[in-house]
Amino acid sequence: MDKRRYDVIIIGGGPAGLTAGLYTARARLNSLLIERALIGGQMTNAERIENFPGFPEGISGYELGQLMYQQATRFGLRTLTAEVTGIELKEDGKVVTTTEGNFVAKAVIIAGGSKRSKLGVPGEKEFTGKGVSYCATCDAPLFRDQPVAVVGGSDVAITEALHLAKFATKVMVIHRRHQLRATAVLQERAFAEPKIEFLWDTTVERIEGEDFVKRLRLNQVKTGRKSTLEVAGVFVCIGAQPDTEYLKGTLQLDATGYIVTNVKMETEIPGIFAAGDIRRDSGRQSVIAAGDGATAAIYAQRFLTEQ
Amino acid sequence: MDKRRYDVIIIGGGPAGLTAGLYTARARLNSLLIERALIGGQMTNAERIENFPGFPEGISGYELGQLMYQQATRFGLRTLTAEVTGIELKEDGKVVTTTEGNFVAKAVIIAGGSKRSKLGVPGEKEFTGKGVSYCATCDAPLFRDQPVAVVGGSDVAITEALHLAKFATKVMVIHRRHQLRATAVLQERAFAEPKIEFLWDTTVERIEGEDFVKRLRLNQVKTGRKSTLEVAGVFVCIGAQPDTEYLKGTLQLDATGYIVTNVKMETEIPGIFAAGDIRRDSGRQSVIAAGDGATAAIYAQRFLTEQ
Repeated sequence: MDKRRYDVIIIGGGPAGLTAGLYTARARLNSLLIERALIGGQMTNAERIENFPGFPEGISGYELGQLMYQQATRFGLRTLTAEVTGIELKEDGKVVTTTEGNFVAKAVIIAGGSKRSKLGVPGEKEFTGKGVSYCATCDAPLFRDQPVAVVGGSDVAITEALHLAKFATKVMVIHRRHQLRATAVLQERAFAEPKIEFLWDTTVERIEGEDFVKRLRLNQVKTGRKSTLEVAGVFVCIGAQPDTEYLKGTLQLDATGYIVTNVKMETEIPGIFAAGDIRRDSGRQSVIAAGDGATAAIYAQRFLTEQ
Repeated sequence: MDKRRYDVIIIGGGPAGLTAGLYTARARLNSLLIERALIGGQMTNAERIENFPGFPEGISGYELGQLMYQQATRFGLRTLTAEVTGIELKEDGKVVTTTEGNFVAKAVIIAGGSKRSKLGVPGEKEFTGKGVSYCATCDAPLFRDQPVAVVGGSDVAITEALHLAKFATKVMVIHRRHQLRATAVLQERAFAEPKIEFLWDTTVERIEGEDFVKRLRLNQVKTGRKSTLEVAGVFVCIGAQPDTEYLKGTLQLDATGYIVTNVKMETEIPGIFAAGDIRRDSGRQSVIAAGDGATAAIYAQRFLTEQ
C-alpha cells in the first residue's frame, strides 16, 4: 500500500482532530493526523480546564491533550508533524500538500483550530518573546515579582490573569469594553483577587521598551485620554482567528474566515469535513471541538462506505 | 425569588444535560436539571466507554456520569427527579410541566436522549425482566453459565455481546442483515471471541417461556426458514427512539421523532434548544452529546443576554 495514500487525513492535533482520529482509528480506517506544532492544540495553553466534562477537579490542557493522544494512538492513529499548505481536488482523491510532501486521501477532516489574534500595534512584533506573550501558561513564571498586563475580557483573558496573579506583583486587565465577556464564575474569582485590577474602555496603542517591554501607551476610548502603564510583560488575549488562509478558493469561508458546515460537519465539498474552532458558530470549547471531531469522523466513515 | 422560576431548565441528566448544566452553572445562570431516572442517562448502561476522549484506558458509563454530575453540581447546578410531561409557551416564560409540578424558565435545553427500541414481538413485554433485557451491564451476571442472545448489529449490540461473553456459556448475536454496523475494532473482538456466534439475516418472531424466557422463534429473512433457539435470556439492542412524545405539537420533529436543530442547537422556537441523542443527525455518542450540551448552554446564555 502506498504510504502516502489514506482513507482519512485529519488536519490538526487539538481536541477536534484527536477525537476524530480516535473514531477513525477505531473504525480501522487508514488514518493520518497532521499537526504543525503541538499535540493538544490551543488547549495546551490552558493551565487548568475546568469545563471539560469528566474531570470534576479540572485538568491541565497539556495533560488532557496527552491523554487524548494516547487514546487515539492506542487504536492505531498515525501522526505526522508538518504544516499543511493546501488541499487540491484531483480525480484520484483529495491531495493534501504539506511541508513534508503530498498525501492523498478519500476524505479530509479539517480541524486546524485557530490562532491568537494580534493587537496590530507598534512594538507588538518587535517585543514578541521579549515581554509580549500569547500564552500565560507558558510564560507566567518569567514575570515573577513584576507587574504585567492582560489585554482582553474573555474566558481566556481572565483565566490567564488569574494564573499570572500567582507570579506577578500586579495584573492589570485592559479591556476595550466596560464589562467582561468571561463566564460569571471566572469574573467572581478575578474581582476577588487583590492583585488583579481593571482598566475599562481602554485600548493599547503602542508597546514600548528597550531590550524588553517597559510600558504600554493606552487610550481611554470614551474620553480619548492617553496614559502610560509601566509593565514588564503584556499578554494579548483578544480572541482568535481561524487558520484557514490556505483554504481560500478551495472552501466556502465566512467573512471572518471560518469554514461553513452543517450539523454533520460537512462542508460544501463531499468528503471534506470541518470540526472544532475552525468552523463557523462553534462555541470554541474543548468539549465542543471533541464532539465535532467524533461527528466528522462518523460522517466521514459513512461517506467512505457510500463511495 | 420564586423557587419554581429559573433562567434555564435542562431536561435530561445524560452527558448532554450534565454538560449543559456545567456551563450554565459556571455562567451563574439559575439552572435546574430535571432527570426522570438515572443521572448519566443511557451512558450508565455502558460497562466500558472507550471512545470518550480523555480516558485512554476507558471508563464505565456509570462512573463517567457520576464525574460529570460532581463537576456540574460543584458549580451549583441543581437537579430534580421528575418526569417532564410537556412544555407550554406562556407570556411570562416557558412552562415545563412535570410529575412534580410546573416550573417556569426563560430558556429550555431539551437533552432527554432516547430510549431503547422494542422488538414489538409476542412475549417481549410479558418476559421483560424475566429474561428479556435492554441492558447487559445491568443484567449480565444473572445469566452466568447460561446461553443468551443479543438482537442487533450496532456498537451497542456488540459491546453488550462482548460483556455477556464474560458470564454466559454462549452468546448468539441475531442480526437481520448479513454484516454488522458496529465499528471495526468491536467487530474484530467479537469475531475473535469463541463464545460469540452469529445468526445472519435473521429476525426474532416470538419470545417464549414459562416463568422465564426459554426459547426464541426465529425467521431467516432470505429463505423464510423458521427455527428455534434455546436461550435463558435475550438482550434487545436494535436502536433507540427519541423521547419526544410529549413535544408533539410544540416543536418541529422529523419523521422518526428527532428534534430538528441548527449548529447552534437552536430549535425553531427562540429560547428552546436541543442537545444530544434527541436531535436530528446526532452521531449518538457521549462526547457528541457533551459537546452539544456546551453549545446549547452557550447559545442559551447569549439568548438570555439579548432578551
